[in-house]
Amino acid sequence: MSPRTGTSIDNPLRRLIGMSATNNPNPVRGGRFREEPSAIMERINASVDFDRQLAPYDIAGSRAHASMLAATGILSVADNDAIQEGLDRIAREIEEGTMTWDPALEDVHMNIEARLAELIGEPARRLHTARSRNDQVATDLRLWLRDHLDHLDDALTRLQESLIVQAERHAASVMPGMTHLQPAQPVTFGHHMLAYVEMFGRDRGRLKDCRRRMNESPLGAAALAGTSFPVDREATAASLGFDRPAANSMDAVSDRDFCLEFLAAGAIIGVHLSRLAEELVLWTSPTFGFVRLPDSLTTGSSIMPQKRNADAAELVRGKAGRLTGALVSLLTVLKGLPMTYGKDMQEDKEPLFDAAATLMLVIPATAAMIGGMTVDTQAMRARTDDGFVTATDLADWLVREKGLAFREAHHTTGRLVALAEEKGCDLASLPLDAMRRVDDRLDASVRQVLTIDASVASRASPGGTAPQRVAEAAEEARRRYLA
Amino acid sequence: MSPRTGTSIDNPLRRLIGMSATNNPNPVRGGRFREEPSAIMERINASVDFDRQLAPYDIAGSRAHASMLAATGILSVADNDAIQEGLDRIAREIEEGTMTWDPALEDVHMNIEARLAELIGEPARRLHTARSRNDQVATDLRLWLRDHLDHLDDALTRLQESLIVQAERHAASVMPGMTHLQPAQPVTFGHHMLAYVEMFGRDRGRLKDCRRRMNESPLGAAALAGTSFPVDREATAASLGFDRPAANSMDAVSDRDFCLEFLAAGAIIGVHLSRLAEELVLWTSPTFGFVRLPDSLTTGSSIMPQKRNADAAELVRGKAGRLTGALVSLLTVLKGLPMTYGKDMQEDKEPLFDAAATLMLVIPATAAMIGGMTVDTQAMRARTDDGFVTATDLADWLVREKGLAFREAHHTTGRLVALAEEKGCDLASLPLDAMRRVDDRLDASVRQVLTIDASVASRASPGGTAPQRVAEAAEEARRRYLA
Amino acid sequence: MSPRTGTSIDNPLRRLIGMSATNNPNPVRGGRFREEPSAIMERINASVDFDRQLAPYDIAGSRAHASMLAATGILSVADNDAIQEGLDRIAREIEEGTMTWDPALEDVHMNIEARLAELIGEPARRLHTARSRNDQVATDLRLWLRDHLDHLDDALTRLQESLIVQAERHAASVMPGMTHLQPAQPVTFGHHMLAYVEMFGRDRGRLKDCRRRMNESPLGAAALAGTSFPVDREATAASLGFDRPAANSMDAVSDRDFCLEFLAAGAIIGVHLSRLAEELVLWTSPTFGFVRLPDSLTTGSSIMPQKRNADAAELVRGKAGRLTGALVSLLTVLKGLPMTYGKDMQEDKEPLFDAAATLMLVIPATAAMIGGMTVDTQAMRARTDDGFVTATDLADWLVREKGLAFREAHHTTGRLVALAEEKGCDLASLPLDAMRRVDDRLDASVRQVLTIDASVASRASPGGTAPQRVAEAAEEARRRYLA
Amino acid sequence: MSPRTGTSIDNPLRRLIGMSATNNPNPVRGGRFREEPSAIMERINASVDFDRQLAPYDIAGSRAHASMLAATGILSVADNDAIQEGLDRIAREIEEGTMTWDPALEDVHMNIEARLAELIGEPARRLHTARSRNDQVATDLRLWLRDHLDHLDDALTRLQESLIVQAERHAASVMPGMTHLQPAQPVTFGHHMLAYVEMFGRDRGRLKDCRRRMNESPLGAAALAGTSFPVDREATAASLGFDRPAANSMDAVSDRDFCLEFLAAGAIIGVHLSRLAEELVLWTSPTFGFVRLPDSLTTGSSIMPQKRNADAAELVRGKAGRLTGALVSLLTVLKGLPMTYGKDMQEDKEPLFDAAATLMLVIPATAAMIGGMTVDTQAMRARTDDGFVTATDLADWLVREKGLAFREAHHTTGRLVALAEEKGCDLASLPLDAMRRVDDRLDASVRQVLTIDASVASRASPGGTAPQRVAEAAEEARRRYLA
Repeated sequence: MSPRTGTSIDNPLRRLIGMSATNNPNPVRGGRFREEPSAIMERINASVDFDRQLAPYDIAGSRAHASMLAATGILSVADNDAIQEGLDRIAREIEEGTMTWDPALEDVHMNIEARLAELIGEPARRLHTARSRNDQVATDLRLWLRDHLDHLDDALTRLQESLIVQAERHAASVMPGMTHLQPAQPVTFGHHMLAYVEMFGRDRGRLKDCRRRMNESPLGAAALAGTSFPVDREATAASLGFDRPAANSMDAVSDRDFCLEFLAAGAIIGVHLSRLAEELVLWTSPTFGFVRLPDSLTTGSSIMPQKRNADAAELVRGKAGRLTGALVSLLTVLKGLPMTYGKDMQEDKEPLFDAAATLMLVIPATAAMIGGMTVDTQAMRARTDDGFVTATDLADWLVREKGLAFREAHHTTGRLVALAEEKGCDLASLPLDAMRRVDDRLDASVRQVLTIDASVASRASPGGTAPQRVAEAAEEARRRYLA
Repeated sequence: MSPRTGTSIDNPLRRLIGMSATNNPNPVRGGRFREEPSAIMERINASVDFDRQLAPYDIAGSRAHASMLAATGILSVADNDAIQEGLDRIAREIEEGTMTWDPALEDVHMNIEARLAELIGEPARRLHTARSRNDQVATDLRLWLRDHLDHLDDALTRLQESLIVQAERHAASVMPGMTHLQPAQPVTFGHHMLAYVEMFGRDRGRLKDCRRRMNESPLGAAALAGTSFPVDREATAASLGFDRPAANSMDAVSDRDFCLEFLAAGAIIGVHLSRLAEELVLWTSPTFGFVRLPDSLTTGSSIMPQKRNADAAELVRGKAGRLTGALVSLLTVLKGLPMTYGKDMQEDKEPLFDAAATLMLVIPATAAMIGGMTVDTQAMRARTDDGFVTATDLADWLVREKGLAFREAHHTTGRLVALAEEKGCDLASLPLDAMRRVDDRLDASVRQVLTIDASVASRASPGGTAPQRVAEAAEEARRRYLA
Repeated sequence: MSPRTGTSIDNPLRRLIGMSATNNPNPVRGGRFREEPSAIMERINASVDFDRQLAPYDIAGSRAHASMLAATGILSVADNDAIQEGLDRIAREIEEGTMTWDPALEDVHMNIEARLAELIGEPARRLHTARSRNDQVATDLRLWLRDHLDHLDDALTRLQESLIVQAERHAASVMPGMTHLQPAQPVTFGHHMLAYVEMFGRDRGRLKDCRRRMNESPLGAAALAGTSFPVDREATAASLGFDRPAANSMDAVSDRDFCLEFLAAGAIIGVHLSRLAEELVLWTSPTFGFVRLPDSLTTGSSIMPQKRNADAAELVRGKAGRLTGALVSLLTVLKGLPMTYGKDMQEDKEPLFDAAATLMLVIPATAAMIGGMTVDTQAMRARTDDGFVTATDLADWLVREKGLAFREAHHTTGRLVALAEEKGCDLASLPLDAMRRVDDRLDASVRQVLTIDASVASRASPGGTAPQRVAEAAEEARRRYLA
Repeated sequence: MSPRTGTSIDNPLRRLIGMSATNNPNPVRGGRFREEPSAIMERINASVDFDRQLAPYDIAGSRAHASMLAATGILSVADNDAIQEGLDRIAREIEEGTMTWDPALEDVHMNIEARLAELIGEPARRLHTARSRNDQVATDLRLWLRDHLDHLDDALTRLQESLIVQAERHAASVMPGMTHLQPAQPVTFGHHMLAYVEMFGRDRGRLKDCRRRMNESPLGAAALAGTSFPVDREATAASLGFDRPAANSMDAVSDRDFCLEFLAAGAIIGVHLSRLAEELVLWTSPTFGFVRLPDSLTTGSSIMPQKRNADAAELVRGKAGRLTGALVSLLTVLKGLPMTYGKDMQEDKEPLFDAAATLMLVIPATAAMIGGMTVDTQAMRARTDDGFVTATDLADWLVREKGLAFREAHHTTGRLVALAEEKGCDLASLPLDAMRRVDDRLDASVRQVLTIDASVASRASPGGTAPQRVAEAAEEARRRYLA
């Protein structure tokens, strides 16, 4: 007995597909190969460990393909019935966790086809008519992503909702509006929350555009050139919820734009979340003390029992790196690849799967933190005074009431700030005569613009931080994003 | 005389804005600072070397802002007239190259304002009323990008046109359709060209979505909180061609999504171009010999006079790295930045400018290569036979004509290929009796599917490579993309 | 009964550490926490799914730490004996696969400590004296990486060996030396192989430098500040094979340079492998036909039975993207992190583990391809003539024999190439009189430099491609790299 | 007159090299080309705008090459003398800014050679004997990088010095040692500074390793295969300060590892600087108030005169993105490039130049900030108490003095912290009887470990934060890094 026959006894693909060991060591490798793949080859080549999460989509795609083959007479009705029933059963087995996945069968597609052959025999061997793994995997991946885009849209909506609720609650809670991490002008915490609602709104828009653009069916492109069978591409596209068949068969099998576009949108979401996470880390540090996260969302230390670390926020911040890395991976993989399909493209799945799983972790984690946090409005107000945050109001007052040119007003205000710093007081506490020594156009009425509440209320331009505007903006955000 | 007074004599910003050296060393730095910036600070901080390409947009933004200030009564009509006239003159000076840019004035905004002060005096100092550099630069950058998105859409359209023209010319020119750089099935060169038309079509879609999403006006957001002046944000938005004012003032000044979204779309374009460039490098190598580029688009060697290198294609391929790098730069810059504006964001411009300039170089260069290349249809046809490319046709024939299950047909074909390889002939040349020893269901009529032209013609499924389909697809592409 | 008490019954960490549910829900969280972590928190926070590959190193670190505690009298000898025995048993359980890993215990460290408490009781609770998870995990990670650096050095050595063997075999096998994928000058296949030996030699050097630089012990840094226990850091460093203790405790726990340095070295290895993989894809394509991979290292097609795809080479090429992505991930994670430890740093492990696993896959896969490939010397020689590859020899001859200035000789040669191209012949076949019409200094003796073998033999400068030089270089490489 | 002849009049390369327009439009393009490069080709291909910074290195390389050619008799002594003199003059012209750079001459090499021809005529045309632009540019780039590595080592040394000076000054200044941006344990500011000294020390090590590894001479590799001239590679290597000639000619011209290795080291430096910059931003924010930067290193706001923004720190933080981007660019460029030289490699220079220039900006800027900052020791001490930072000391006391197991001590401490939090006091202020109700083993002597100074002083393990250790460590750092 030759070693090859010996090996073949254990080759499950051969056994399941029901071909003799002598004739067909592996249905994918054809009848031409004289040697078994080496161990390292099998290890580098097998993808079933990760691509089996495509299984439900692979089954959906095969069902649509078989039905179309039957409708166009390429497959008999009886064969199609057997295939549908068999795939249905495999779907149940996968759901129940009883399906056996075999790396020797390389990928999710061959595992399912082999199991189908085991269950229904001959008709399974007709399923791949007018199809190739190239259009099959492109279809699976699009279906998978479409589903995940929908889940992510839900998750982002819930995150927006948690932000809007806090915005409503804190439409008038003042805090130091920062630039360069220096108090600049007072804003309200609600206004700050709504800034993130806008960011995540654009993120949802990007995911939606990605979904619209990718929703085309590769089925019928076969290996790369189309097929000589009289397939009905409109039918498979429609039954799988695609808007239309892809226009060019070579593009259909080699296109991974939708992966890149999603990964790019995901990396941007990651950046947004990292910014909010950074703020949560700052706000929950005792030095700021603006926000307290529930114990359920912080951790302690193995050695320092007093710590209340915003670990979740730090992980959210860190995972921006992972999302950027996933995007870079695939951009680099695809760079310089000639048409049509290269095995390099198998490297599309892990970054895609990891990015989606990461997003489905960090978005809800952030929503939980935003929803669960307690805002210390006293601490925020106390810190608002730190940096002469009404200086702009003073400059604007000089322009509005005293007719100074803005640049002159800006300069005069700067001198007043320097004076207050020297005296160790805030602007509102500067003695009027001291102020007038800087500029004698100043008078007592200036004091009314130097309070934080007056400052915030005055910023009533559309999109501004005046509490009334924030309340309206929260209502508008509800209407635009949560309806 | 103190060194500081000494220095101040040479400080052009101070001189131009017309403030005394003692009072105001630098209008941006206010009246509070006691020391001049150190040399390293000036060097790291100055951006006018690169951000002056924002000048026309900065002027447009200032004109819209001043007009609105006048319309709402915040500025006098006379001041506005002076400002408009002054800005108009600066625009001409910039166009004519007579404007002097001074790094000591830090950035494009202060250079223009200083020049305006020099030209018109006092009114210049009123221009910045109800505005901050934060909303100003955000406006400039959006206007800049919007223009460049339009230029890029034009450039991509021209590239698509060059591809469509070649597709029309070569709708029936056969070539080996490759997967894994191995001949797989015959396709036509026109079909191959149209695959790229689809890619660049999606690229245009992404740029268009980016343009739509970013087309909101930051003006009126001021530093971060909105303004207490009764500005008309709808008016400035409308006069600058924005669809609406940005909804949240903090988001308006800190948002750089549009940069990231553009850079991501640009990186994907770069990947597409790198794939086409790789093919041009392969096709123009003597080993392939499918395509010849005009001498005007190749270079020679300093030491090997016979070389005809596709340097431009290699540079296009390489610049995908640059575009990916630009995206990574900005993703990393923005990661973890707290609200609202941080100086880190000044690092948004160079990757953005470099990416746009790179794209405006590589897209036309590719269009020139595609438009100028000569296709050697003989060489392509000769190479099409290399790899038994009609094997799939044989397998499909066994399914269609002889009722074999696809997997069985696939296996039988594999054995026939092995036989042909052994005999050193192609499939069509295999003696019938030798074929029948593999499977006696084979008969002479099989030969009709084994020619390349029959194979190509048979792939008539929608989106397939049959010449008739390619001709139709080229027509359709013209209608969709070039109308 | 409160829900909290209810939950606590199932909390294995609490149970194993042997503290009452009421008092201490989680030893890591301390006695202060009032709520259990939410599900999302547990999910985002748990790392045991991936960090358990640190287990052997964690056990080694704990053993060294406990022994030192005993030697310095901080721990009793009896306690240490119990700990050593317990850890020994856990090591066996892990090896045998009987250890239970519980995500509720967060990470590998707490899982092992909990199991130790279960096995030996009280002494387990003394193990963490004078230690923190911060120095513990930094130690584990360094030990893990050091081991993997050694494995990778072995793998690269084997790859170099496979290249050197081919270089010895093909020291004189001519092939077209390419620049710009255009034949430039003839080289030998052996010379080409040795170029990669140099690259992988530098890669080994980088890994070695990384190993040397990272080989410092964090133990004793505790949380960040050092410890008040009289620990002996030299002892733990020595017993774990570190060269010395890390000099600064804050740096010791926050440093992840060694991860970045390794990931950077790994990305460069990935680039090298991708270049060689690209060449294998080209060489094994029928168009080139220089190399044939064994069937065991290629795959077929599900629809095109004739294909012999260099899938492994394509995967190696693609995985360069993954390695670059891993590096970018961690660079982005660490960007802007303040001292000392942030939970973001938990994101160091997955890119590190994935990069090492990827390298341990792609390096042996490449070695297998190089070792197993068959080189078609006829095909290579046939292709060497394609592009007038001896033109440089002609130019050099004009300089050497006829005293032309190099630039003039270069120009004359260019005209001769143009002439040969026009006549459709190679340089050696140009009639002498036709040549002399270009430059009458040419004579019949020029022909001797126009053959490929003469050309290759003449490049005998050190490091050149002359077969004699290549043979010597292979011998030298053996000595430098394989000794 | 044909357009081509017309053009040729203006072609400076042609003119300077002294060839007739008809025969030789461009010395690099050889005598074969029939068309001029198109405008887009010239624009994409020209590199002299950036590669002219290689000029001094190109001249040094040419001088060494010419001297060797003369020493080996390949060039006459008179020709060499003329070349040396001509190159010397060009070097002066470049230094004085009088050299004219012409993009039509493509790159720095051809510009210099053309100028040389203009100056000395015929001998200039002999300089390129036994050389190619491939080994020439590889040599230039290595010389350029070697110089910049030396400059960077100096800059990092000065940065370390500024950190060590602050460490010496603040060896005993307490501050809250943070993990997760939460006060964890008290440390000294000097200890914190020294952590960065270690980081930059490793950075210097990486640059040094890079320098050592790259210091091999490509000269003599010629285009890719070596040369038939009897060159003396040892001589050129030695005269240019290289340690040896590169071992393999193909590797010598295609190797860009040294660029990648430098860019990777640069990206890691960028990460380190971004971490320190983040801390400076935090420390200088009024909320922390630990550090004040001199006015010369901060900026104001155009609208908020009170701001004192740490712009330089933010720019340093942001430029980590740029450095990461540069690395990614080149990794992506090189991915999948076949041997030997491809024009893609021209994309090596801009990331390299930009990274070096960025580093030469951010390292001194950081040194200036560290050197110029004022540390507010009162503010730091005030903040040290914020978070029960002596809790670990309490736990350790329980272990050391009362024999509790560490885990039990940790738990008890947690309950005491909860109690203090509830009472709104710090640990040292907890009434003893209240403490004893938690654990009756506590006694009055515990108070001595609860002060910040006692805590800091107790961390006297090697590498710990005890002031004595910090002073010693600063001395040691001086010895190791500044000697």
